[in-house]
Amino acid sequence: VLQFEDFEPGQVYELGSWEVTEAEILDFARAFDPQPFHVDPDAAARSPFGGLIASGWHSAAIYMRLYVDGILSRAASMGSPGVEELRWLVPVRPGDVVRGRFTVVETSPSSRRPDRGTVIALCELLNQRGEVAVSFRARGFFGRGVPG
Amino acid sequence: VLQFEDFEPGQVYELGSWEVTEAEILDFARAFDPQPFHVDPDAAARSPFGGLIASGWHSAAIYMRLYVDGILSRAASMGSPGVEELRWLVPVRPGDVVRGRFTVVETSPSSRRPDRGTVIALCELLNQRGEVAVSFRARGFFGRGVPG
Repeated sequence: VLQFEDFEPGQVYELGSWEVTEAEILDFARAFDPQPFHVDPDAAARSPFGGLIASGWHSAAIYMRLYVDGILSRAASMGSPGVEELRWLVPVRPGDVVRGRFTVVETSPSSRRPDRGTVIALCELLNQRGEVAVSFRARGFFGRGVPG
Repeated sequence: VLQFEDFEPGQVYELGSWEVTEAEILDFARAFDPQPFHVDPDAAARSPFGGLIASGWHSAAIYMRLYVDGILSRAASMGSPGVEELRWLVPVRPGDVVRGRFTVVETSPSSRRPDRGTVIALCELLNQRGEVAVSFRARGFFGRGVPG
């Protein structure tokens, strides 16, 4: 089990990849972000984006899934209080194959709770051309001294 | 159509409300954030959260839907480059009835593109007890001088 003391500034974890389909973009956007350029391919083609793009919250959620599968599913995760500087830099489009990258920026043990610490990481979702499509700085709590 | 010049610092838009069901929390989390406290009611009960809680990305997405229905669906929206200070302050749990609040913080016309401007807003998702569960500062682009 990955825990607080296993993370060190500078470490880079390459997470897995995810093929983004048009059906998935439409499903997410119809539920949570029904703007024309997310739910209507024709309107999207006429928009400044020139075609359908994924909701920014969808692309962030895809990063989250890659992060859970690649790190949190084998870590003593204790949740997150939030993220900074969430940036939607390059649209995510149908057919894109995106992948995640998690870079440890800073670690700090909790001064009040000896059983945990905070890991600050740069989280990036890259597309098949190596462009960073989404990035943010996340703060996560991890257990310390967890047996096993 | 709401456009850039309709937004003024200090304006408060009360958005609609949304009842969060356990089924919806499980569906979102199974797809995007399958941590035990989001997908497994028993494991969640034994976790520090004391029960099932919605993924933070799910609660942000719920805000987005309320924002689209309450504002963007009748606005000349041109997308968003990102958000600052996304905070998950109070867990969102099954049965919660959440509502959105959009407070205009700052507006600035684009210096390069006369057809648009940026609106910075404080976005808050409140629960039925009036607690702010999620908050963030969003930057959005809106058209200026749009006919109609």
